[in-house]
Amino acid sequence: MKLLLEIRYDGSGFHGWQVQPDKITVQSCIQDALEKLFGKRYDVTGCSRTDSGVHARQFFCTVDGMSESKISLDRVPRALCALLPDEAAVISCREVPDDFHPRYSCKGKEYEYIINARSCRDPFLRGRAWQLCRELDIPAMERAAKGIEGKHDFSSFCAANASTSDNVRTVEYCRVTEENGIVRINITANGFLYNMVRIITGTLVEAGLGKKEYEDTGKIIERLDRKAAGITAPACGLYLNRVKY
Amino acid sequence: MKLLLEIRYDGSGFHGWQVQPDKITVQSCIQDALEKLFGKRYDVTGCSRTDSGVHARQFFCTVDGMSESKISLDRVPRALCALLPDEAAVISCREVPDDFHPRYSCKGKEYEYIINARSCRDPFLRGRAWQLCRELDIPAMERAAKGIEGKHDFSSFCAANASTSDNVRTVEYCRVTEENGIVRINITANGFLYNMVRIITGTLVEAGLGKKEYEDTGKIIERLDRKAAGITAPACGLYLNRVKY
Repeated sequence: MKLLLEIRYDGSGFHGWQVQPDKITVQSCIQDALEKLFGKRYDVTGCSRTDSGVHARQFFCTVDGMSESKISLDRVPRALCALLPDEAAVISCREVPDDFHPRYSCKGKEYEYIINARSCRDPFLRGRAWQLCRELDIPAMERAAKGIEGKHDFSSFCAANASTSDNVRTVEYCRVTEENGIVRINITANGFLYNMVRIITGTLVEAGLGKKEYEDTGKIIERLDRKAAGITAPACGLYLNRVKY
Repeated sequence: MKLLLEIRYDGSGFHGWQVQPDKITVQSCIQDALEKLFGKRYDVTGCSRTDSGVHARQFFCTVDGMSESKISLDRVPRALCALLPDEAAVISCREVPDDFHPRYSCKGKEYEYIINARSCRDPFLRGRAWQLCRELDIPAMERAAKGIEGKHDFSSFCAANASTSDNVRTVEYCRVTEENGIVRINITANGFLYNMVRIITGTLVEAGLGKKEYEDTGKIIERLDRKAAGITAPACGLYLNRVKY
């Protein structure tokens, strides 16, 4: 049988999702907790590979190749929580068909990026937002965000060292909102390239700081060149918000 | 001259406000930062003594007995932030009359207490809420909160070891709200006794868990006995929200 776990984690406690030697990662913690609970080591497949410091309000992973569970599935979340570090939690657990794949079955994801644009850093946003602490021109950022929406080749918004053959993705929406100096960028797409949200955010922020050349994101997309876009925003402000199946 | 600093801190980084030998406290960090900035050690007086783990979204302290500042006052917040740990920030700085006292000049304070009543703990509320993870009867809590409002002798809601001669305080409001399983208790009063908000919260939570005897807070007040009230809620859910002068 195949189990689907819905999890949530504060990325500041982990070196990202994926198992790495001698590093505390979300995947290794989940595998350790499962081993303690079921007495056997299982492979766990995630819906995405979040970088070190990136957060997930919703994340899914499957536990593959399990024999029948001796523990009732509605008890699994609480049991796993007790075995996980405080920075992670298992919200729900259910059985899925064998051909379900947390990444390939995914229909789309929403990411959120949080920026503190107040004059002063916020102790409560430590490790949970980009503490930019500079005023941002929100209408300029909104114009730049508009140009991101739609179906495009996003090579300009992909980390230069990433090797993907097809960089075409469809961004359903890219919205900028502001409340009391806290700026949020919400992006939904059918898929994301490596560092895509962080590079879009960096570009929007440069537009918001008055660098006119970053406002016309349509032109940046056309260049198909990472150098055309803005900086890569820090990992700590990024949240995987929602995963759609 | 006397300076008034408005500060904000995540209490999980400190052993409370007040200076203690060999402990990192907010007061000692502020005094250290001032000494580095002005080259002299000053006494700092706070508006309240928050316990270890308690947070402050707004907190005021005065810097007493300063000679003329060589640094323009509007530059002081940023300069102090650079010298403070990330868990604290100085929001503003202004001069106040010599007879101003951050505690005695205070007209009232608002505290907020946050409880996670969802079935699962939340990694993002780690150290920032009481992770109760049990369902609460909100109408029962609202009824209990109503009885707290008004001018009363709050001896039943004061830590048994506290020695104050006059335990009469006026609670302007005590409100319970709930959104997506996150419960907030907001209390404004002209003054608070030691552990008062945490004991009120503990009592309201017992009412919310169905312990009927904790619903009638009017009767608990009349008893003038700490044993009549509920448990003391953990420090980590408590926020000093606003200080009125």
